Amino acid sequence: MEALYQRIRQEGKILPGSIVKVDGFLNHRIDARFLGELAQEFARRFDIAKVTKILTAEASGIPLASVCSYCYGIPMVFAKKAKSDNIEGGLYRSDIFSYTYKKKVTLICSQNWITAEDKVLIIDDFMANGEAMRGLLNIVKQAGAELVGIGVAIEKGFQQGGDKLRAEGYPLQSLAIIDRADENGFVFRGE
Amino acid sequence: MEALYQRIRQEGKILPGSIVKVDGFLNHRIDARFLGELAQEFARRFDIAKVTKILTAEASGIPLASVCSYCYGIPMVFAKKAKSDNIEGGLYRSDIFSYTYKKKVTLICSQNWITAEDKVLIIDDFMANGEAMRGLLNIVKQAGAELVGIGVAIEKGFQQGGDKLRAEGYPLQSLAIIDRADENGFVFRGE
Repeated sequence: MEALYQRIRQEGKILPGSIVKVDGFLNHRIDARFLGELAQEFARRFDIAKVTKILTAEASGIPLASVCSYCYGIPMVFAKKAKSDNIEGGLYRSDIFSYTYKKKVTLICSQNWITAEDKVLIIDDFMANGEAMRGLLNIVKQAGAELVGIGVAIEKGFQQGGDKLRAEGYPLQSLAIIDRADENGFVFRGE
Repeated sequence: MEALYQRIRQEGKILPGSIVKVDGFLNHRIDARFLGELAQEFARRFDIAKVTKILTAEASGIPLASVCSYCYGIPMVFAKKAKSDNIEGGLYRSDIFSYTYKKKVTLICSQNWITAEDKVLIIDDFMANGEAMRGLLNIVKQAGAELVGIGVAIEKGFQQGGDKLRAEGYPLQSLAIIDRADENGFVFRGE
Protein backbone atom coordinates (compact mmCIF):
# COMPACT_ATOMS: atom_id res chain seq x y z
CA MET A 1 0.00 0.00 0.00
CA GLU A 2 1.80 3.04 -1.34
CA ALA A 3 0.56 5.53 1.29
CA LEU A 4 1.88 3.25 4.03
CA TYR A 5 5.25 2.83 2.29
CA GLN A 6 5.53 6.62 2.16
CA ARG A 7 4.62 7.02 5.82
CA ILE A 8 7.15 4.38 6.88
CA ARG A 9 9.85 6.04 4.75
CA GLN A 10 9.06 9.49 6.15
CA GLU A 11 8.70 8.62 9.82
CA GLY A 12 10.03 5.12 10.41
CA LYS A 13 13.29 4.64 12.24
CA ILE A 14 15.65 1.73 11.89
CA LEU A 15 17.45 0.74 15.09
CA PRO A 16 20.39 -1.67 15.33
CA GLY A 17 19.33 -5.26 14.62
CA SER A 18 16.81 -4.14 11.99
CA ILE A 19 14.32 -3.09 14.66
CA VAL A 20 11.74 -0.92 12.92
CA LYS A 21 10.04 1.85 14.88
CA VAL A 22 6.86 3.45 13.62
CA ASP A 23 5.63 4.71 16.95
CA GLY A 24 4.74 8.12 15.55
CA PHE A 25 1.56 6.93 13.84
CA LEU A 26 0.92 3.24 14.52
CA ASN A 27 1.64 2.05 18.03
CA HIS A 28 2.41 4.79 20.57
CA ARG A 29 1.29 8.07 19.05
CA ILE A 30 -1.70 7.10 16.90
CA ASP A 31 -2.89 8.83 13.73
CA ALA A 32 -6.36 7.30 13.76
CA ARG A 33 -7.47 8.91 10.50
CA PHE A 34 -4.52 7.29 8.76
CA LEU A 35 -5.43 3.99 10.42
CA GLY A 36 -8.85 4.52 8.82
CA GLU A 37 -7.13 4.44 5.41
CA LEU A 38 -5.54 1.11 6.36
CA ALA A 39 -8.98 -0.16 7.44
CA GLN A 40 -10.38 0.78 4.02
CA GLU A 41 -7.56 -1.13 2.34
CA PHE A 42 -8.32 -4.24 4.41
CA ALA A 43 -11.95 -3.85 3.34
CA ARG A 44 -10.82 -4.10 -0.30
CA ARG A 45 -8.81 -7.25 0.41
CA PHE A 46 -11.22 -9.22 2.63
CA ASP A 47 -14.91 -10.12 2.50
CA ILE A 48 -15.82 -7.83 5.40
CA ALA A 49 -19.56 -8.46 4.97
CA LYS A 50 -18.96 -11.98 6.21
CA VAL A 51 -17.00 -10.99 9.34
CA THR A 52 -18.78 -11.11 12.72
CA LYS A 53 -15.82 -10.39 15.00
CA ILE A 54 -12.47 -8.60 14.79
CA LEU A 55 -9.74 -10.05 17.01
CA THR A 56 -6.46 -8.47 18.06
CA ALA A 57 -3.95 -8.62 20.93
CA GLU A 58 -3.23 -5.96 23.50
CA ALA A 59 -1.79 -3.45 23.50
CA SER A 60 -0.45 -2.17 20.20
CA GLY A 61 -2.98 -3.98 17.99
CA ILE A 62 -5.89 -2.24 19.70
CA PRO A 63 -5.82 1.16 17.95
CA LEU A 64 -5.92 -0.29 14.42
CA ALA A 65 -8.48 -2.95 15.37
CA SER A 66 -10.65 -0.31 17.09
CA VAL A 67 -10.65 1.88 14.00
CA CYS A 68 -11.49 -1.15 11.82
CA SER A 69 -14.33 -1.99 14.21
CA TYR A 70 -15.66 1.57 14.00
CA CYS A 71 -15.37 1.78 10.21
CA TYR A 72 -16.98 -1.62 9.54
CA GLY A 73 -19.54 -1.54 12.39
CA ILE A 74 -18.34 -4.95 13.58
CA PRO A 75 -17.46 -5.66 17.24
CA MET A 76 -13.82 -6.14 18.18
CA VAL A 77 -12.29 -8.30 20.90
CA PHE A 78 -8.77 -7.90 22.17
CA ALA A 79 -6.91 -10.79 23.77
CA LYS A 80 -5.28 -9.71 27.01
CA LYS A 81 -1.82 -10.45 28.28
CA ALA A 82 -1.65 -12.09 31.73
CA LYS A 83 -4.61 -12.35 34.02
CA SER A 84 -6.35 -9.54 35.80
CA ASP A 85 -8.71 -10.43 38.62
CA ASN A 86 -11.65 -8.89 36.79
CA ILE A 87 -11.90 -11.58 34.10
CA GLU A 88 -14.16 -14.28 35.43
CA GLY A 89 -15.03 -17.72 34.20
CA GLY A 90 -14.15 -19.49 30.98
CA LEU A 91 -11.10 -18.29 29.16
CA TYR A 92 -9.22 -19.29 26.07
CA ARG A 93 -5.51 -19.30 26.89
CA SER A 94 -2.63 -19.32 24.49
CA ASP A 95 1.04 -19.17 25.45
CA ILE A 96 3.40 -17.22 23.22
CA PHE A 97 6.97 -15.99 23.51
CA SER A 98 7.16 -12.21 23.38
CA TYR A 99 10.36 -11.04 21.69
CA THR A 100 9.51 -7.49 22.71
CA TYR A 101 9.43 -8.38 26.40
CA LYS A 102 11.82 -11.35 26.20
CA LYS A 103 9.53 -13.68 28.12
CA LYS A 104 6.60 -16.03 27.87
CA VAL A 105 3.26 -14.28 27.77
CA THR A 106 -0.17 -15.86 28.01
CA LEU A 107 -2.88 -14.41 25.79
CA ILE A 108 -6.31 -14.77 27.33
CA CYS A 109 -9.75 -14.15 25.91
CA SER A 110 -13.16 -14.66 27.45
CA GLN A 111 -15.11 -17.53 25.92
CA ASN A 112 -18.13 -15.24 26.01
CA TRP A 113 -16.79 -13.08 23.22
CA ILE A 114 -15.54 -15.50 20.56
CA THR A 115 -17.71 -18.53 19.82
CA ALA A 116 -18.09 -21.28 17.23
CA GLU A 117 -20.61 -19.05 15.39
CA ASP A 118 -18.04 -16.32 14.77
CA LYS A 119 -16.32 -15.52 11.51
CA VAL A 120 -13.15 -13.80 12.58
CA LEU A 121 -10.90 -11.21 11.00
CA ILE A 122 -7.62 -10.96 12.91
CA ILE A 123 -6.04 -7.51 12.79
CA ASP A 124 -2.60 -6.55 14.10
CA ASP A 125 -0.25 -3.63 13.70
CA PHE A 126 2.95 -5.60 13.24
CA MET A 127 4.22 -9.06 12.45
CA ALA A 128 7.81 -10.25 12.75
CA ASN A 129 8.31 -13.90 13.69
CA GLY A 130 4.55 -14.37 13.96
CA GLU A 131 4.45 -15.56 17.58
CA ALA A 132 1.62 -13.27 18.66
CA MET A 133 -0.32 -14.19 15.51
CA ARG A 134 0.04 -17.90 16.31
CA GLY A 135 -1.46 -17.14 19.70
CA LEU A 136 -4.45 -15.39 18.16
CA LEU A 137 -4.95 -18.18 15.62
CA ASN A 138 -4.90 -20.64 18.49
CA ILE A 139 -7.72 -18.72 20.20
CA VAL A 140 -9.80 -18.81 17.00
CA LYS A 141 -9.17 -22.55 16.83
CA GLN A 142 -10.09 -23.14 20.49
CA ALA A 143 -13.32 -21.24 19.89
CA GLY A 144 -14.14 -23.38 16.86
CA ALA A 145 -14.68 -20.15 14.95
CA GLU A 146 -14.05 -19.63 11.24
CA LEU A 147 -11.06 -17.55 10.18
CA VAL A 148 -11.95 -15.11 7.41
CA GLY A 149 -8.58 -13.43 7.18
CA ILE A 150 -5.50 -11.99 8.84
CA GLY A 151 -4.79 -8.31 8.22
CA VAL A 152 -1.46 -6.88 9.29
CA ALA A 153 -0.30 -3.31 8.77
CA ILE A 154 3.45 -3.92 8.65
CA GLU A 155 5.18 -7.26 8.23
CA LYS A 156 8.90 -7.69 8.67
CA GLY A 157 9.40 -9.99 5.71
CA PHE A 158 12.98 -10.81 6.62
CA GLN A 159 11.81 -12.51 9.83
CA GLN A 160 9.71 -15.09 7.92
CA GLY A 161 6.70 -15.26 10.27
CA GLY A 162 4.38 -14.13 7.49
CA ASP A 163 5.91 -16.33 4.78
CA LYS A 164 5.45 -19.39 6.97
CA LEU A 165 1.78 -18.56 7.55
CA ARG A 166 1.22 -18.04 3.81
CA ALA A 167 2.97 -21.33 3.06
CA GLU A 168 0.54 -23.02 5.46
CA GLY A 169 -2.37 -21.53 3.53
CA TYR A 170 -3.46 -18.80 5.93
CA PRO A 171 -5.23 -15.86 4.24
CA LEU A 172 -2.71 -13.25 5.36
CA GLN A 173 -2.63 -9.77 3.87
CA SER A 174 0.07 -7.36 5.00
CA LEU A 175 -0.18 -3.79 3.76
CA ALA A 176 3.58 -3.31 3.80
CA ILE A 177 6.13 -6.11 3.81
CA ILE A 178 9.58 -4.83 4.70
CA ASP A 179 12.17 -7.09 3.12
CA ARG A 180 15.14 -5.01 4.19
CA ALA A 181 15.66 -2.27 6.74
CA ASP A 182 19.20 -1.01 7.14
CA GLU A 183 21.39 2.05 6.75
CA ASN A 184 20.18 2.33 3.14
CA GLY A 185 16.58 2.65 4.27
CA PHE A 186 13.54 0.45 3.60
CA VAL A 187 12.97 -2.03 0.79
CA PHE A 188 9.37 -3.20 0.43
CA ARG A 189 8.40 -6.50 -1.18
CA GLY A 190 7.00 -6.12 -4.68
CA GLU A 191 8.58 -2.76 -5.36
CA MET B 1 -25.69 10.04 29.43
CA GLU B 2 -28.92 8.07 29.14
CA ALA B 3 -27.79 5.66 26.38
CA LEU B 4 -24.80 4.66 28.51
CA TYR B 5 -26.97 4.14 31.61
CA GLN B 6 -29.19 1.82 29.56
CA ARG B 7 -26.26 -0.12 28.21
CA ILE B 8 -24.78 -0.56 31.69
CA ARG B 9 -28.16 -1.70 33.05
CA GLN B 10 -28.64 -4.15 30.17
CA GLU B 11 -25.17 -5.67 30.03
CA GLY B 12 -23.24 -4.65 33.14
CA LYS B 13 -22.53 -7.23 35.79
CA ILE B 14 -21.96 -6.55 39.46
CA LEU B 15 -19.45 -8.87 41.14
CA PRO B 16 -18.87 -9.16 44.89
CA GLY B 17 -17.17 -6.07 46.28
CA SER B 18 -19.09 -3.77 43.92
CA ILE B 19 -16.80 -4.68 41.04
CA VAL B 20 -18.54 -3.52 37.87
CA LYS B 21 -17.97 -5.44 34.64
CA VAL B 22 -18.86 -3.92 31.29
CA ASP B 23 -16.52 -6.05 29.22
CA GLY B 24 -19.18 -6.73 26.60
CA PHE B 25 -18.91 -3.30 24.99
CA LEU B 26 -16.21 -1.17 26.63
CA ASN B 27 -13.03 -2.99 27.55
CA HIS B 28 -12.72 -6.56 26.25
CA ARG B 29 -15.34 -6.97 23.54
CA ILE B 30 -15.60 -3.50 21.98
CA ASP B 31 -18.67 -1.96 20.34
CA ALA B 32 -16.77 0.77 18.53
CA ARG B 33 -19.86 2.38 17.01
CA PHE B 34 -21.27 2.82 20.52
CA LEU B 35 -17.92 4.25 21.61
CA GLY B 36 -18.43 6.74 18.76
CA GLU B 37 -21.59 7.93 20.54
CA LEU B 38 -19.55 8.46 23.70
CA ALA B 39 -16.98 10.39 21.64
CA GLN B 40 -19.74 12.67 20.33
CA GLU B 41 -20.93 13.31 23.89
CA PHE B 42 -17.39 14.29 24.96
CA ALA B 43 -17.34 16.65 21.97
CA ARG B 44 -20.42 18.39 23.40
CA ARG B 45 -18.79 18.76 26.81
CA PHE B 46 -15.26 19.86 25.87
CA ASP B 47 -13.74 22.43 23.52
CA ILE B 48 -12.40 19.81 21.11
CA ALA B 49 -11.27 22.43 18.56
CA LYS B 50 -8.61 23.45 21.06
CA VAL B 51 -7.25 19.93 21.68
CA THR B 52 -3.99 18.90 19.99
CA LYS B 53 -3.48 15.50 21.64
CA ILE B 54 -5.61 12.80 23.23
CA LEU B 55 -3.91 10.86 26.02
CA THR B 56 -4.93 7.53 27.54
CA ALA B 57 -3.35 4.54 29.30
CA GLU B 58 -2.97 1.02 28.00
CA ALA B 59 -4.74 -1.23 27.60
CA SER B 60 -8.44 -0.69 28.24
CA GLY B 61 -8.45 3.06 27.58
CA ILE B 62 -7.13 2.56 24.04
CA PRO B 63 -10.36 1.57 22.23
CA LEU B 64 -12.34 4.62 23.40
CA ALA B 65 -9.39 6.98 22.89
CA SER B 66 -8.78 5.53 19.41
CA VAL B 67 -12.38 6.12 18.40
CA CYS B 68 -12.24 9.68 19.79
CA SER B 69 -9.02 10.22 17.82
CA TYR B 70 -10.69 8.96 14.65
CA CYS B 71 -13.88 10.99 15.13
CA TYR B 72 -12.10 14.25 15.99
CA GLY B 73 -9.13 13.84 13.62
CA ILE B 74 -6.72 14.50 16.50
CA PRO B 75 -3.73 12.24 17.24
CA MET B 76 -3.84 10.00 20.31
CA VAL B 77 -1.01 8.82 22.53
CA PHE B 78 -1.28 5.93 24.93
CA ALA B 79 0.95 5.68 27.99
CA LYS B 80 2.43 2.20 28.27
CA LYS B 81 2.78 0.03 31.33
CA ALA B 82 6.30 -1.21 32.09
CA LYS B 83 9.16 -0.89 29.68
CA SER B 84 9.63 -2.67 26.41
CA ASP B 85 13.03 -2.55 24.79
CA ASN B 86 11.65 -0.80 21.76
CA ILE B 87 11.05 2.53 23.46
CA GLU B 88 14.20 4.55 23.15
CA GLY B 89 15.33 7.77 24.68
CA GLY B 90 13.50 10.32 26.77
CA LEU B 91 10.48 9.09 28.65
CA TYR B 92 8.02 10.55 31.06
CA ARG B 93 7.53 8.09 33.92
CA SER B 94 4.78 8.01 36.46
CA ASP B 95 4.31 5.38 39.17
CA ILE B 96 0.80 4.30 40.06
CA PHE B 97 -0.70 1.49 42.11
CA SER B 98 -2.88 -0.78 39.98
CA TYR B 99 -5.80 -2.16 41.98
CA THR B 100 -6.65 -4.41 39.06
CA TYR B 101 -3.24 -6.07 39.13
CA LYS B 102 -2.52 -5.47 42.85
CA LYS B 103 0.93 -4.03 42.26
CA LYS B 104 2.87 -0.93 41.40
CA VAL B 105 2.88 -0.10 37.72
CA THR B 106 4.94 2.51 35.93
CA LEU B 107 3.25 4.45 33.16
CA ILE B 108 5.71 5.56 30.50
CA CYS B 109 5.29 7.90 27.57
CA SER B 110 7.82 9.07 25.01
CA GLN B 111 8.74 12.74 25.37
CA ASN B 112 8.52 12.94 21.59
CA TRP B 113 4.72 12.63 21.64
CA ILE B 114 3.55 15.01 24.38
CA THR B 115 5.25 18.40 24.56
CA ALA B 116 4.79 21.81 26.20
CA GLU B 117 2.92 22.95 23.08
CA ASP B 118 0.20 20.33 23.49
CA LYS B 119 -3.34 20.92 24.72
CA VAL B 120 -4.38 17.56 26.07
CA LEU B 121 -7.70 15.80 26.44
CA ILE B 122 -7.32 12.73 28.67
CA ILE B 123 -9.74 9.93 27.85
CA ASP B 124 -10.25 6.74 29.85
CA ASP B 125 -12.84 4.00 29.99
CA PHE B 126 -13.12 3.73 33.75
CA MET B 127 -12.29 5.58 36.92
CA ALA B 128 -12.50 4.19 40.43
CA ASN B 129 -9.97 5.51 42.93
CA GLY B 130 -8.36 7.63 40.23
CA GLU B 131 -4.84 6.19 40.49
CA ALA B 132 -4.35 5.69 36.77
CA MET B 133 -5.75 9.17 36.12
CA ARG B 134 -3.23 10.69 38.58
CA GLY B 135 -0.52 8.98 36.58
CA LEU B 136 -1.76 10.48 33.31
CA LEU B 137 -2.12 13.95 34.88
CA ASN B 138 1.44 13.63 36.10
CA ILE B 139 2.62 12.95 32.54
CA VAL B 140 0.77 16.06 31.29
CA LYS B 141 2.45 18.07 34.06
CA GLN B 142 5.92 16.65 33.30
CA ALA B 143 5.42 17.62 29.66
CA GLY B 144 4.43 21.17 30.63
CA ALA B 145 1.35 20.68 28.44
CA GLU B 146 -2.04 22.29 29.02
CA LEU B 147 -4.90 20.12 30.25
CA VAL B 148 -8.11 20.84 28.34
CA GLY B 149 -10.22 18.18 30.03
CA ILE B 150 -10.62 14.69 31.41
CA GLY B 151 -13.28 12.52 29.80
CA VAL B 152 -14.23 9.23 31.45
CA ALA B 153 -16.89 6.82 30.26
CA ILE B 154 -17.80 5.24 33.61
CA GLU B 155 -16.87 6.56 37.04
CA LYS B 156 -17.43 4.54 40.19
CA GLY B 157 -18.68 7.43 42.28
CA PHE B 158 -18.60 5.47 45.50
CA GLN B 159 -14.81 5.14 45.28
CA GLN B 160 -14.29 8.92 45.38
CA GLY B 161 -11.45 9.23 42.87
CA GLY B 162 -13.53 11.49 40.65
CA ASP B 163 -14.94 13.61 43.48
CA LYS B 164 -11.44 14.34 44.73
CA LEU B 165 -10.33 15.46 41.28
CA ARG B 166 -13.38 17.72 40.90
CA ALA B 167 -12.73 19.18 44.37
CA GLU B 168 -9.21 20.01 43.21
CA GLY B 169 -10.65 21.86 40.23
CA TYR B 170 -9.89 19.38 37.46
CA PRO B 171 -12.25 19.61 34.45
CA LEU B 172 -13.54 16.05 34.74
CA GLN B 173 -16.59 14.86 32.85
CA SER B 174 -17.81 11.30 33.40
CA LEU B 175 -20.62 10.08 31.17
CA ALA B 176 -22.00 7.75 33.84
CA ILE B 177 -21.26 8.04 37.56
CA ILE B 178 -22.28 4.91 39.41
CA ASP B 179 -23.10 5.82 42.99
CA ARG B 180 -24.27 2.37 43.96
CA ALA B 181 -23.89 -1.10 42.45
CA ASP B 182 -25.31 -3.98 44.47
CA GLU B 183 -27.94 -6.71 44.37
CA ASN B 184 -30.56 -4.03 43.63
CA GLY B 185 -28.73 -2.98 40.46
CA PHE B 186 -27.16 0.33 39.46
CA VAL B 187 -27.89 3.81 40.81
CA PHE B 188 -26.47 6.63 38.71
CA ARG B 189 -25.68 10.07 40.11
CA GLY B 190 -28.23 12.72 39.15
CA GLU B 191 -31.03 10.29 38.42
